[in-house]
Amino acid sequence: MNAEVTESAVDPAERLARVALSRLAEPGDVRMTRLVADLGARAVHEHLMEEGGSSELRDDVATRLASLDPAAELDRAERLGLRFLVPGDEEWPDQVDGLLGAGAVNVRGGVPIGLWVKGPLRLDRVARSVAIVGARSATSYGSHVAAEIAAGLSRSDTCVISGAALGIDQAAHRGALSAEGPTVAVLACGADRIYPAAHRELISWIGDHGLVVSEAPPGGAPTRVRFLARNRLIAALGAGTVVVEAALRSGALSTAAWTERLGRPLMGVPGPVTSAQSQGVHERIRLGAAHLVTCADDVAELVARAGEAIVEDRREPVRPRDRFTVRQRQVLDALPVSRGVGADIVSWGAGIGLREVQSTLVGLETGGWVLRDGHGWRLAPSDGA
Amino acid sequence: MNAEVTESAVDPAERLARVALSRLAEPGDVRMTRLVADLGARAVHEHLMEEGGSSELRDDVATRLASLDPAAELDRAERLGLRFLVPGDEEWPDQVDGLLGAGAVNVRGGVPIGLWVKGPLRLDRVARSVAIVGARSATSYGSHVAAEIAAGLSRSDTCVISGAALGIDQAAHRGALSAEGPTVAVLACGADRIYPAAHRELISWIGDHGLVVSEAPPGGAPTRVRFLARNRLIAALGAGTVVVEAALRSGALSTAAWTERLGRPLMGVPGPVTSAQSQGVHERIRLGAAHLVTCADDVAELVARAGEAIVEDRREPVRPRDRFTVRQRQVLDALPVSRGVGADIVSWGAGIGLREVQSTLVGLETGGWVLRDGHGWRLAPSDGA
Repeated sequence: MNAEVTESAVDPAERLARVALSRLAEPGDVRMTRLVADLGARAVHEHLMEEGGSSELRDDVATRLASLDPAAELDRAERLGLRFLVPGDEEWPDQVDGLLGAGAVNVRGGVPIGLWVKGPLRLDRVARSVAIVGARSATSYGSHVAAEIAAGLSRSDTCVISGAALGIDQAAHRGALSAEGPTVAVLACGADRIYPAAHRELISWIGDHGLVVSEAPPGGAPTRVRFLARNRLIAALGAGTVVVEAALRSGALSTAAWTERLGRPLMGVPGPVTSAQSQGVHERIRLGAAHLVTCADDVAELVARAGEAIVEDRREPVRPRDRFTVRQRQVLDALPVSRGVGADIVSWGAGIGLREVQSTLVGLETGGWVLRDGHGWRLAPSDGA
Repeated sequence: MNAEVTESAVDPAERLARVALSRLAEPGDVRMTRLVADLGARAVHEHLMEEGGSSELRDDVATRLASLDPAAELDRAERLGLRFLVPGDEEWPDQVDGLLGAGAVNVRGGVPIGLWVKGPLRLDRVARSVAIVGARSATSYGSHVAAEIAAGLSRSDTCVISGAALGIDQAAHRGALSAEGPTVAVLACGADRIYPAAHRELISWIGDHGLVVSEAPPGGAPTRVRFLARNRLIAALGAGTVVVEAALRSGALSTAAWTERLGRPLMGVPGPVTSAQSQGVHERIRLGAAHLVTCADDVAELVARAGEAIVEDRREPVRPRDRFTVRQRQVLDALPVSRGVGADIVSWGAGIGLREVQSTLVGLETGGWVLRDGHGWRLAPSDGA
């Protein structure tokens, strides 16, 4: 383990539980990330280890968890030059906590259980971070502008976040590197791997001078769900997102959608209306979803203004119930306050499948929000929150 | 005189007075256009003819008016193929009446006293009109897009209004012509003249198949003030304005500013952020003053939506006092209701120069809003409006 992690105030058992769950769950698994955010990894881990017998799925989960050695995982990661960040670590990028409550049902979301990172850069030590994303099949115009904006932001100690993909991502990282600014590559594969292979040199360079980040465990392959989860993480690491070029159905627009869900400024660089690679950007601007930006100064101004607005918003106290997921709220609303009912009744009342209801109830029980009596499930006595 | 004018319900004496005032005043002379809009041309004309002696300027005006022969002017214009439209004519483009109250002090404005037009097109017979303007030093990209949008609008019987200038204007007219759509060239010189000379063929073609419009009298030279007044007229003839390319200090932005003053949709076509010719457009979009549009459909949608909003607005009754100019309101506010005061006292109270106050008072007196008693000027008894 490196110095950062040793200094952390995080309970070592909580960290090890997060290592295990990070290996068990797919990045952005909504149920898992939210259960962990609500209850803590240790409680979820213990629950999953102890529960058994009621379903084959749960048996399988318990067996897989039992076969993991989180301490050995951490040692192995350290030898690969990786460290594992969890909420509470000094180095944890607090901005990703914005993902709590930013998601939607059936969208990969939630606060990451942990982040596997490689590189000397510490995200808590840059002035701010801005995501720059766009088309893989970028035009030379788009690549030029992405690099210019990245270089401009770098000069004011703004960290450039991107996905190390071909096209705009690469141009953004290179623009930051050209200005010797901090840059972060968020990968869909493990932080010890290289994807795409053509960017071996770029990603290695970022791992040596900036930061490579992944929610997937070491060795993890870049899969479709991991790309989608990665896009949300790029949006969550930035104080705002700049889309430089994107066709109408570009993957970069998923990062854009997450930026909107997070309530952070979404910015778009215009281009010729005759270019298909600018159509997705123009549409976002036209519909009022994205601000038009033409240079690094425009981006810095919008991000700074939004930053002030966020400080205002934070004055509103957060009640525990505000942190429930949509699914949890649906289940809670279907529960009686007095005599308990069976999970099948709750399932019928909430309009959610039985298995989903059962796992949600277990999570809520661990958090003390619901309890079992002789008849079934009911709400726990309220704490007035 | 052609058939249109003969059929009009407009008092012939009013029309002749407007011919004379059109020759006397510069296009967009705020004081003159508003006096005429408020009081009618005949009253203003008579007042200017009868008043005299109090200033050299007024003597000069009376002398000039006396030397004019409006009926002969109309005959001469007819021989040149021109007709003179005034408010109340069936063919009068009602949308320019939006200029009433849209101006600001010290900006050339107001509803034109009349319009000298040449060509078979009747503006009251097209579905709608949209202005397309932009840089004279347009790029090939800008010219291409201007022509495309103009052609697209033409296909839905939308009339393309522009200024027949080099660059974007020319491309817009040519796009409309290519789709055999209606198009109007608004000139700063007389409608019988050609400016710029390089566009002789284009302007002649529009005069033969579309409509050439000018606020300046026949034979009038294109002067700087007439260009500025022309820009406002382009904005006023369109249900909205599309700026295709404009550098940061482009003249096209004066048309844009008038569109904003008129409360009509201002639209901008984006381009490469590396192009100086797109900077003025990007700035208007970035500041929220202009909507981003990429094609004729985007334009048609915005103009249609704004059209519905205008219909809503019209339900609010207009009171006579709402039609006063800023200057007139300032003078009215400085006047006593009982015993009259001298114009010098009003000037002091309103913070406006004495000569300005005197001419404003004369106009208000003709309209019956103020009157003179033994002591000086005071408000006329209110009609409750």
